[in-house]
Amino acid sequence: MKFARFTKQNETEILQGVVTDNGIQQIKGDIFSDWKHTDLIHNPEELELLAPLTARHVIGIGANYVGKIEDLPSELPEIPVFFYKPLSSVIGSGKPIVIPAKIDEVKFESELAVVIGKRTSNISEEEVADHIFGYTIANDVTAPQFFHEAGHWMVGKSFNTFTPLGPYIETELDPDKIRVEAYLNGNKKQDSGTALMIVSMKKMIAYLSSVMTLEAGDVILTGSPLGAEMMKDGDEISCEIAGIGELRNVVKQG
Amino acid sequence: MKFARFTKQNETEILQGVVTDNGIQQIKGDIFSDWKHTDLIHNPEELELLAPLTARHVIGIGANYVGKIEDLPSELPEIPVFFYKPLSSVIGSGKPIVIPAKIDEVKFESELAVVIGKRTSNISEEEVADHIFGYTIANDVTAPQFFHEAGHWMVGKSFNTFTPLGPYIETELDPDKIRVEAYLNGNKKQDSGTALMIVSMKKMIAYLSSVMTLEAGDVILTGSPLGAEMMKDGDEISCEIAGIGELRNVVKQG
Repeated sequence: MKFARFTKQNETEILQGVVTDNGIQQIKGDIFSDWKHTDLIHNPEELELLAPLTARHVIGIGANYVGKIEDLPSELPEIPVFFYKPLSSVIGSGKPIVIPAKIDEVKFESELAVVIGKRTSNISEEEVADHIFGYTIANDVTAPQFFHEAGHWMVGKSFNTFTPLGPYIETELDPDKIRVEAYLNGNKKQDSGTALMIVSMKKMIAYLSSVMTLEAGDVILTGSPLGAEMMKDGDEISCEIAGIGELRNVVKQG
Repeated sequence: MKFARFTKQNETEILQGVVTDNGIQQIKGDIFSDWKHTDLIHNPEELELLAPLTARHVIGIGANYVGKIEDLPSELPEIPVFFYKPLSSVIGSGKPIVIPAKIDEVKFESELAVVIGKRTSNISEEEVADHIFGYTIANDVTAPQFFHEAGHWMVGKSFNTFTPLGPYIETELDPDKIRVEAYLNGNKKQDSGTALMIVSMKKMIAYLSSVMTLEAGDVILTGSPLGAEMMKDGDEISCEIAGIGELRNVVKQG
């Protein structure tokens, strides 16, 4: 099932729905606990998509893909490079990514994003699947010009509009059978299977759960395949995972 | 005015109140927008304090104090070392700080914490005071054993119980006239005025507002004075700011 969050054109009320053959059927309630269909079905072309959830935390992992299976390291890093992105950076598909005023390009990073569905603390890899609500696509937009020389990424990851999420949360995806793609102005730049992750999705969530209690609504970005590039004013970036959809944003100079 | 969040002993309902001469007077509503007194006054000794708000983000700044005024650098860092702490790390005064199982000591860092009161985007230093709801005390507990060798602090700052906050939010504090103190088992370890901050509270909030839109409930930890030390099982740490109170936690081995 695909969950969406949206507004009707020229309205401000935030609505939720599920994707059906006839359009987006409005639902009410909490997608993580208790929700019901309504009788309202909307034409997707008359909606503005928002990020498909109000995230609680957005957590990313750095440099997590190799180019080919033979390059996978024999030993995993003892401490993975995790980082947070703020809620203020989250936008939906179709909204512009804004380049900060003092620079003229930012990097796209197409990623599989995992949405946690319930309280998650000290779980094993085998238990991870049971704690996942669904999957969406993230663009972990980054301004490496604002990385601190001592290694801190916070500012360069935190600007408003730097975390496009969407278009939908798909609850029935097999994450082992997907490819994470990115198209810059229509040209393919990223295209990798998740087998090329250094720290697997299950390992990273099990590790995180040994540090902190995750809750429903926490979103884990699982790292970006090789091929990420910089984008400039006027570019269009589409991050795609077959089975979820296309997360498409234009880039604007701020 | 001092705001508190608490439960009654052996109850789970989360209540809010303001500190009065007669006890903690229960309030209802949203402390940031619209709240009212109730007629209920509680004896503080019959309450369990929680962190005084549900934070939206917790943002810290690294290495932000010098030992004496003469050591202040003539130029500010171009990119301050900011980092996030997760909501799952926040506890109230009186709750135990838990040392992760694989290590046997963690660091205390007593800090002035600023609570943002309204939407804050691209403001000047002069406008910062108007965006602050109040002040509380934070203990930015840290496990440097989990810092990544490439400079990423996320794991070492993120364990459950690593962000004691409280005891209260004081709305009428002059941040230029306070001292940030810490007492480990009763022995003074930290005691500095905020004039020893390298990036001043106003500068750091103005800078952050140029990166991201802050909102009511965002909490900014303003850095810790020299003198922070490691704590072990059984220690008691009290972070204190006259005018706010004492944020007191015992340390337990996990």
